[in-house]
Amino acid sequence: MAPAAVPIAATASELTVSAMKTDLAKSTKPQLDASKLTYTFNKHGGVVPALDDPIRREHNSSTDHMLTVKWTEKGGWEAPQLRPYGHLDIMPTASCIHYATQAFEGMKAYRGVDGKLRLFRPDLNCKRMNLSSTRIALPPIDPEQLEELVKNFVSVDCPKWLPDPETFIYLRPAVIASGAALGVQKPREATVFIIAVLFPPMEVLNGMRLLASKEDMGVRAWPGGHGWSKVGANYGPTLQAQGEARERGFDQILWLLGSEGRVTEAGASNFFVVWKNKTSGRLELITAPLGDKIILDGVTRRSVIELAKSRLSHNPTEVLKEVQHLEKLDVVEQNYTIDDIAEAYEDGRLVEAFACGTAFFVAPISYIQHEVDKGIEVPMNTTTTDGCKSGAYAAAIKTWLKEIMYGKVSHPWGVVINERGAQ
Amino acid sequence: MAPAAVPIAATASELTVSAMKTDLAKSTKPQLDASKLTYTFNKHGGVVPALDDPIRREHNSSTDHMLTVKWTEKGGWEAPQLRPYGHLDIMPTASCIHYATQAFEGMKAYRGVDGKLRLFRPDLNCKRMNLSSTRIALPPIDPEQLEELVKNFVSVDCPKWLPDPETFIYLRPAVIASGAALGVQKPREATVFIIAVLFPPMEVLNGMRLLASKEDMGVRAWPGGHGWSKVGANYGPTLQAQGEARERGFDQILWLLGSEGRVTEAGASNFFVVWKNKTSGRLELITAPLGDKIILDGVTRRSVIELAKSRLSHNPTEVLKEVQHLEKLDVVEQNYTIDDIAEAYEDGRLVEAFACGTAFFVAPISYIQHEVDKGIEVPMNTTTTDGCKSGAYAAAIKTWLKEIMYGKVSHPWGVVINERGAQ
Repeated sequence: MAPAAVPIAATASELTVSAMKTDLAKSTKPQLDASKLTYTFNKHGGVVPALDDPIRREHNSSTDHMLTVKWTEKGGWEAPQLRPYGHLDIMPTASCIHYATQAFEGMKAYRGVDGKLRLFRPDLNCKRMNLSSTRIALPPIDPEQLEELVKNFVSVDCPKWLPDPETFIYLRPAVIASGAALGVQKPREATVFIIAVLFPPMEVLNGMRLLASKEDMGVRAWPGGHGWSKVGANYGPTLQAQGEARERGFDQILWLLGSEGRVTEAGASNFFVVWKNKTSGRLELITAPLGDKIILDGVTRRSVIELAKSRLSHNPTEVLKEVQHLEKLDVVEQNYTIDDIAEAYEDGRLVEAFACGTAFFVAPISYIQHEVDKGIEVPMNTTTTDGCKSGAYAAAIKTWLKEIMYGKVSHPWGVVINERGAQ
Repeated sequence: MAPAAVPIAATASELTVSAMKTDLAKSTKPQLDASKLTYTFNKHGGVVPALDDPIRREHNSSTDHMLTVKWTEKGGWEAPQLRPYGHLDIMPTASCIHYATQAFEGMKAYRGVDGKLRLFRPDLNCKRMNLSSTRIALPPIDPEQLEELVKNFVSVDCPKWLPDPETFIYLRPAVIASGAALGVQKPREATVFIIAVLFPPMEVLNGMRLLASKEDMGVRAWPGGHGWSKVGANYGPTLQAQGEARERGFDQILWLLGSEGRVTEAGASNFFVVWKNKTSGRLELITAPLGDKIILDGVTRRSVIELAKSRLSHNPTEVLKEVQHLEKLDVVEQNYTIDDIAEAYEDGRLVEAFACGTAFFVAPISYIQHEVDKGIEVPMNTTTTDGCKSGAYAAAIKTWLKEIMYGKVSHPWGVVINERGAQ
């Protein structure tokens, strides 16, 4: 399937983006073009709530603007519009509210300690959005143009809506089949939109308590499905079980797969364990692999792996003083089961565990219930500078990510955005 | 989990409806109440297009009205509103366009040869909508009240929009998480709506050509998933493969499951095969079972099974002259594989195959491609009164269903609706 010119080592993402570009080159219809963005500013902007305003906990307060772009099969991409935030006109026959023809991204914009506005690896989100969109039968979305649109959007709204150093705002690019057509078929119209939503400051003080899924609670993803992509269909079906878990005092579900109990994700986050390998005794940071397309290729997941390899492995490319007290480890992307974790716990080989993702960032795990009356008490031996209990590796990685996001260090992952404001 | 008072033989549906009623009884919040329906009639109604108007093929022409009901976790159910058809106000943060928190039903209203308006087993659709809604973390929907609302809606719009005998209009009840809240959590607001959409007359003249799915095309449903419920998340993820199959000259995908190639559904329809059993040599009508919750409990599927048992089996409860030429058969709900069909074809034991569902009704299958250059030519030895090629069993069952739907016979499945019109 791969074009001959693409090197064998290319990742699935790279292959698909490459294929998409070929398609775009062939199309004579107007393409997604960020340079065509038009601006209609909101003259009745809202008031920015304080950081501790409880309204932030509702996750429904948006900023003054949204950005929308319409696509039709016949006409291609229209000019993107930045315009006052408001409702979407969706007809009751729109595919997106019947057939889950929808995909999205989760990103954040960060206000640095230096006062600068940054995005964190926005290229990865935009590439993934393209993959998710095509997985759900929506059009390919040129990642570079989408990234440019995200940058333009935050450049307008963040000067006002993200004033405080070391705070963030959540960004949600999404694509939906917005056309009125009730047939169960590949959509002929779509709308890409970008909004920003206020979140409360989030720190997990004492670690998250996870409930390992049973088969009657559902399965998050499966071989041949779409667990690897950020489509709506991966989320709604998990909420019933999540709601029940919360009523029982857990924060999230640890999604297992198959009768062997393969560990996949925690809630809507990737999941990592630090343990001593049963056979070799070597210290490992382990997470499920991407190869079988069950697991979301998380931007935070990828960053954790890359930082751990470069700073915590036996062959580090960067040597940092502050982790000299931490034992070096192997970074392993490999399938493992809930029984493997339980056994490591019983043997005293379990060191720590954490979930990670854009929304919850790096969240240490304190407990995993895997049988009716049986749980795994996950060690959390460190207290971070912000007063949270954590494992030492999660704490180190979290600190490094924050340094990049909030501009405490200069790093290519932290992309500075010029600010123009709403004028 | 089941309350002790429920008999062991109760079906999953009955159990859940029973549990739901208990929940409703406990709630002190306003419940769904069809008697509170308010009417705001459309004073600028549309023109009904002719039956052969190509606009019907777009599946986006609706009638003059829609019916909406809002639910909130805090306030319970509001009064249902019948009002002019128009767009839904959906905020960009609404859960339904991000997390596939949506479920729906497919029904039809029929204009009989006697001029009367009928629904076909609407109780089954309404019970299933309740199950689908709770599966996707939306509120339970009292099936009896929903049925009453559907009846009220068609009673208003069908006098004008369904004038011709032996025609139908498609009805779409749906429920979506309509509240503005971007958190990945159980929705706190929902909207139920009912609309009617014009379809073109549909007959499959020469049978449908199916492409059996390969693992790289995805999987429709899986154990522990939600294939049994009518949630949006079952549909969007199949459209990419469906689009590719159409480009290759196939009508639908025959969705297989697992390395053994278990036959599940055809497109968004249930699937039946008539063959001679390999071991016993007995004639069988076989379809995949509901027990493992992979398969949609289709209203047409159920009706096919019940009619085949009562009229075509070795112990019929109704004896009909017109099928005396047809050999009696066993009705079997059991897992079978694509290799089983291929083997029956090679042995000369394959008699016919058909898909069935509300949208496509009973659609004979002419061909199934299951290997790159290898296909199964499915026999179609009958021509129906409307000029379509078909297997004889599919033709008989289709005729019986039409007789009930269009009031050619009196039958409890055909529910006559009083008509009031829009005044």
